[in-house]
Amino acid sequence: MTMPTLGIVGGGQLARMTALAAGRLAVPVLVLAADRDEGVRGLAPVLPGGPDDLGALRRLAERVDVVTFDHERVDVRHVAALEEAGHVVRPGSRALGFADKLVQREAFVAAGLPVPAFSRVAGAQDLTRFGEEHGWPLVLKLARGGYDGRGVVVEHGLEAASRLVGQPDTTWVAEPLLPLDAELAVLVVRRPGGEQVAYPPVTTVQVDGMCREVLAPVAVDQAIADRAAAVARTVAEHVGAVGVLAVELFVAGGQVLVNEVAPRPHNTGHPTIDGHATSQFENHLRAVLDWPLGPTALRAPAVAMVNVVGRAGDPRARLPQALAAGDAHIHLYAKTARPGRKLGHVTALGADLDTALATARRVTAILEAGDG
Amino acid sequence: MTMPTLGIVGGGQLARMTALAAGRLAVPVLVLAADRDEGVRGLAPVLPGGPDDLGALRRLAERVDVVTFDHERVDVRHVAALEEAGHVVRPGSRALGFADKLVQREAFVAAGLPVPAFSRVAGAQDLTRFGEEHGWPLVLKLARGGYDGRGVVVEHGLEAASRLVGQPDTTWVAEPLLPLDAELAVLVVRRPGGEQVAYPPVTTVQVDGMCREVLAPVAVDQAIADRAAAVARTVAEHVGAVGVLAVELFVAGGQVLVNEVAPRPHNTGHPTIDGHATSQFENHLRAVLDWPLGPTALRAPAVAMVNVVGRAGDPRARLPQALAAGDAHIHLYAKTARPGRKLGHVTALGADLDTALATARRVTAILEAGDG
Repeated sequence: MTMPTLGIVGGGQLARMTALAAGRLAVPVLVLAADRDEGVRGLAPVLPGGPDDLGALRRLAERVDVVTFDHERVDVRHVAALEEAGHVVRPGSRALGFADKLVQREAFVAAGLPVPAFSRVAGAQDLTRFGEEHGWPLVLKLARGGYDGRGVVVEHGLEAASRLVGQPDTTWVAEPLLPLDAELAVLVVRRPGGEQVAYPPVTTVQVDGMCREVLAPVAVDQAIADRAAAVARTVAEHVGAVGVLAVELFVAGGQVLVNEVAPRPHNTGHPTIDGHATSQFENHLRAVLDWPLGPTALRAPAVAMVNVVGRAGDPRARLPQALAAGDAHIHLYAKTARPGRKLGHVTALGADLDTALATARRVTAILEAGDG
Repeated sequence: MTMPTLGIVGGGQLARMTALAAGRLAVPVLVLAADRDEGVRGLAPVLPGGPDDLGALRRLAERVDVVTFDHERVDVRHVAALEEAGHVVRPGSRALGFADKLVQREAFVAAGLPVPAFSRVAGAQDLTRFGEEHGWPLVLKLARGGYDGRGVVVEHGLEAASRLVGQPDTTWVAEPLLPLDAELAVLVVRRPGGEQVAYPPVTTVQVDGMCREVLAPVAVDQAIADRAAAVARTVAEHVGAVGVLAVELFVAGGQVLVNEVAPRPHNTGHPTIDGHATSQFENHLRAVLDWPLGPTALRAPAVAMVNVVGRAGDPRARLPQALAAGDAHIHLYAKTARPGRKLGHVTALGADLDTALATARRVTAILEAGDG
């Protein structure tokens, strides 16, 4: 058989949804998963091992045709070692290098791409200088490893900010707290040879730094939406992404600025499973296997997605009630419920965004009530 | 955790697609699969064993909360034994008893439901009598175990027909070769308490007795479509179905006749994965777990599905080319390619049926060219 096997590093919900997409196309999957990775259990064969274990990464690479990722918290040197050994890793070490927010910003500035003002800050002197130039409060972001609001803080004063950025072995990036007109995301999918498709831009709504809602179509002027799509496509080329590259953008003062990128399927792409012609997971799979990419159009006038976040209990306890609550697609990740953890998402399609969003919110609220 | 585990008897493509639907909702699945069952490998944990092995069925039932089926080729007495032992089996022995075409026909006649003329035929005398009454050729159908055109033959003369029906340990049903205006199917989904939803009727196109294409919406008069839906709902109640019941109907001379029923997710429901608000697999899951059922409306003006059938080679060999050929959803079942075997299906959504069907046929033709 000519069917390639896909290896996935990490076994969270992105691996889970990639495995489900692979299952439709009969693409075999093997997942490198640590004990804590629950998302993919039962849905794909698992090779035990963590993403920091080069030996485990090699064992995975030897058993599959293409290696891809559930998350970008992988040592780029390990990825480079796999590449040097002749393994196909997509995205590769170059694109994964962009998982560092400081690297991203510096590269995008060098490429003439629009980004917010920023600076690496390692102590009081850097903070004072940046604060004088851009004013307080500042947003401080951990260059690597932050997610779902972790590693992003708003600091109002020099003293607390200095303590934070003075921690050893961390790199912090400062940016001004911009008054935002909107936050958008554009998913670009790119094949090794450079062929790209982009999904229509979506609006992202963050709560406590974590993505809460994703809405399509966007409510900004068409010119802004077009600009966002064009910037995202340029970013993807510049990063040399293979697979999905999620480009998160600020709209501030009529300008489109690149906030950050993630070289993998992304929370802002979850609506594509039910709402678009091809899901981001299938398109990621197709891109990393160097297969033709699928169309990205919306299947309905409006699509709204709301994340199911851990609160008091386990959303699985209220699944039957949630299923009764409206015309929505419920996705659960089979993860142990903990407060603040993403445990699923709900997507609703509709004739207009208000209706779709109301449905998705209603169903999500029931799931989040859990058994608590 | 309150999440029930679903046991599935049989590991073909219906188990595969049920497991994928279960994966979205984080419902754990355990499949009882014989060595020959390839469809579900890698996508769900497998308990080895065949559907005729009561010990294996008991082992499955003991490890899950609800037992359901990939196929109805299971001894009803075994199912009754599981029920007697207190296991929850859905559909149960009563509905599975309707997997026999003679039982179906006799029960539907008794219930006043419209069926074609039919008779059990065991030898030349029965055939002669039926032929005198209804004319030749006759259609002869094996009461149990036929599928995909196997067990259905058109006979033009007494001699060959007598040889066929005279085989030991087989039960044959004769019916006239009706001039059909259309063949329709209606999927009804029913919970244990009787709550039902029905999918919109679809047109089914058979080639050599095997389902080849499924089309929605139907091209018959609204009155006929409404009648088909009403008959199917009555049939489901009468059968006492739990889960999906596929009702296949003939339209002949302006009448709607019940051809046959299958108490499980069905080939004619595959378009629902991409084309409808809730897939038949998710609704089957919801029904057998006694959870609220999902909406069944079409998501597009027209949906066309074409089966990928084994010809010269393996459709997986041409998957990349097929992915490039149009806006269609490709599903492959990971089964060894053999001529005449269903290996996948392709669904296309469109503004009209001609366009959708042309796309689905084009993509299917590429897959069927395989590597041959």
